[in-house]
Amino acid sequence: MMTLDRTHDAELRSWVASANGHVDFPIQNLPLGVFSAADGDPRVGVAIGDSIFDVRAAALAGLFTGEAVVAANLCLGATLNELMGAPPSMRRILRAAVSGMLAVRSDAEATIKHARPNILREAAECTMHLPARIGGFTDFFAGLHHAVTAGRMLRPANPLLPNYKHVPIAYNSRASTIGVSPARVRRPQGQVLPTGATQPLKRATERFDYEFELGVWIGRANSDGEPIDISRAGDVVFGYCTLNDWSSRDIQRWEAQPLGPFLAKSTATTISPWIITPEALAPFRAPQPKRDPGDPAPLPYLWDDPDQAHGALAVNLEILLRTSRMRAAKAAAERISSTDALSLYWTPAQLVAHHSVNGCILNPGDIFGTGTISGDEGDSAGCLLEHTQDGEKPLTLGSGEQRRYLEDGDEVTLRAHCKRKGFASIGFGDNRGEITPAAPR
Amino acid sequence: MMTLDRTHDAELRSWVASANGHVDFPIQNLPLGVFSAADGDPRVGVAIGDSIFDVRAAALAGLFTGEAVVAANLCLGATLNELMGAPPSMRRILRAAVSGMLAVRSDAEATIKHARPNILREAAECTMHLPARIGGFTDFFAGLHHAVTAGRMLRPANPLLPNYKHVPIAYNSRASTIGVSPARVRRPQGQVLPTGATQPLKRATERFDYEFELGVWIGRANSDGEPIDISRAGDVVFGYCTLNDWSSRDIQRWEAQPLGPFLAKSTATTISPWIITPEALAPFRAPQPKRDPGDPAPLPYLWDDPDQAHGALAVNLEILLRTSRMRAAKAAAERISSTDALSLYWTPAQLVAHHSVNGCILNPGDIFGTGTISGDEGDSAGCLLEHTQDGEKPLTLGSGEQRRYLEDGDEVTLRAHCKRKGFASIGFGDNRGEITPAAPR
Repeated sequence: MMTLDRTHDAELRSWVASANGHVDFPIQNLPLGVFSAADGDPRVGVAIGDSIFDVRAAALAGLFTGEAVVAANLCLGATLNELMGAPPSMRRILRAAVSGMLAVRSDAEATIKHARPNILREAAECTMHLPARIGGFTDFFAGLHHAVTAGRMLRPANPLLPNYKHVPIAYNSRASTIGVSPARVRRPQGQVLPTGATQPLKRATERFDYEFELGVWIGRANSDGEPIDISRAGDVVFGYCTLNDWSSRDIQRWEAQPLGPFLAKSTATTISPWIITPEALAPFRAPQPKRDPGDPAPLPYLWDDPDQAHGALAVNLEILLRTSRMRAAKAAAERISSTDALSLYWTPAQLVAHHSVNGCILNPGDIFGTGTISGDEGDSAGCLLEHTQDGEKPLTLGSGEQRRYLEDGDEVTLRAHCKRKGFASIGFGDNRGEITPAAPR
Repeated sequence: MMTLDRTHDAELRSWVASANGHVDFPIQNLPLGVFSAADGDPRVGVAIGDSIFDVRAAALAGLFTGEAVVAANLCLGATLNELMGAPPSMRRILRAAVSGMLAVRSDAEATIKHARPNILREAAECTMHLPARIGGFTDFFAGLHHAVTAGRMLRPANPLLPNYKHVPIAYNSRASTIGVSPARVRRPQGQVLPTGATQPLKRATERFDYEFELGVWIGRANSDGEPIDISRAGDVVFGYCTLNDWSSRDIQRWEAQPLGPFLAKSTATTISPWIITPEALAPFRAPQPKRDPGDPAPLPYLWDDPDQAHGALAVNLEILLRTSRMRAAKAAAERISSTDALSLYWTPAQLVAHHSVNGCILNPGDIFGTGTISGDEGDSAGCLLEHTQDGEKPLTLGSGEQRRYLEDGDEVTLRAHCKRKGFASIGFGDNRGEITPAAPR
């Protein structure tokens, strides 16, 4: 298990006042991202409370010392790919250094407060960017309840296919349309076969959906194409985010046989911009939940005792919906679902080991989606396909409105938090997207 | 239809003697690639006979003039992405300039012959590299006979699914393991369910296959996410190559439901290193072959009269196999299959229009595979799955050996040539890969 050190101490406080008790970004989190301020180009930052710590500006001000200089020098570009490609120790050294600078009674406080250009920025005045050049985007299907519920709609008697509990099922998805929150997502056009019709047509999707997944960022992995042993597969994970895999269910239904989903998934994917590190999440590792008695044991290449003992992640997930009518009435977003990432059938390390077993190269900056994470009840559903049973049982909102699928103007917010007694709570930051109308043709 | 100019003239000859009558690279071809010589880093080149013309060295020697200077300046890096992202006119200007320099009685001949560093290199002494940083790799399924034959193995009564003739079916594949010919491809390990077994196991694939596809390189497309109208979709294509989509049929069978092929396809994909430009292929455009009488008309977003009139490509394809026993006996590779790209059900422009209809962004350096190209008979099969009916009817070679699937030491060569009376023949260059044994565990 990962060592906990003083950067995790719940008593640790920051001289950045907004960080103390912050719902997402206390000093125990220190997630990495890429931001720009009005007067500058995109650069690497660390979220601290309502502010962003500019790693490059701090490096130029000479605030890093010793081996932390090496770590900070990997963060001088416009993406995190260089740090991602370095040994994970570099990320840990950076974390320790930044924690030290931002903690109360830090020697760096005065320098940071008075430096020009600013080392500390108001997050509200910054724009977030993709944290990395993304090579490959692999979308897994590790949410067991999602697989069962979605499978039941197609095969009521036999929802889960025979391979599911043996193979971490996945498909390659499209990296070019991944963007960061907050996003505006235009309702896509596509080819669909309307219910009862014999001929398809092109139209705007009528079954536009969100999917709440965790995103898993890949760091230094196997540029040589050697399979990654499960015992070291966890070290390949650079961090985590939330991931909304927007899906057009009607397009998906018509296109997905025999080769899987394609355009139904490639209009847009929205990720939360901050990368929550394995170090920040160390206190929230959990045993892989018990299998059902009849479940098969994973094959040896997917089995590792330490991974089984604490390779899973306990993360609370919430989905909020705000319609344009709610926005006009100044009503807050409504929480429509909540669940926990512990319902994932496979650990991140198992996903990595499986992905590379055939010699597939994983590169720094690749990202995995876990698959939609749902509990086994409606109000823990990670997508509307499950929540409304493909539109059959509309969701009634507090505003009196109903939803079978998303409508124009709807704003979906994904939230994720880790909580455990004796530790500061760690948040992922909001992942928000609003649906805009389709193009007129 | 694209204008033919003097660069296409069959009478045009080069002072590079090996180019005249060259089976692949006469002066009418001038494909683009990235190469390195022993004394230098990867840079952009043009194949001419048995030589490679170094675009950067020529630019530094001042051989380009007028607007060709702009075009050549887009080729100073280690990939073609910059030229790919420029208007297609830049590629055409470069072609005209290089054609002029390499034609007999060119003023540039003396300079090129005497320049140091060399502008002209022996191809045999150079190493080829990926011609671009590849963003997305999309694998289509546009080979009708392949879809029918492969479908028949799964659904004898109903081989073609109802969507096939409406939707250009595709899946996202894995870009990180694309490499150029010549390649050594290690037999992958993976999870399979052996015939008759009730439990899967991990082992080296026993059904390793090649797939002959054309590769379609994407140039300047839709960075804004606007759908690309079919009328301009052809202009988005930067060029073509051959593509061997190595496939593990046993892994594929076990993993591919419900989300499509994944690790079965991501061990390796081998492309021919030279990009054959739309200009070189202009004389070989053909009408989209007639549909069967009962076939549906494509939806309007996939229909364009000029594309129907000359959007298809007439390319002869050949597959050669050489076993290690044949190599030991100094026997030549044996041609085991030949077919024509005209059997593709969709044109490249239709693939582009469909891929972007939902707002999916295509970037310069993306690549499409067309899907396996087969004729309707065994010896026109584009893969062994079809050729041997999934190993049921082994192929007997001239050496007396039989093949159900590929064995270690087998060398597969894909060749493609365009021939038409009155025009110089245009070749794609060999695409060769040899199977090496699986890792011992």
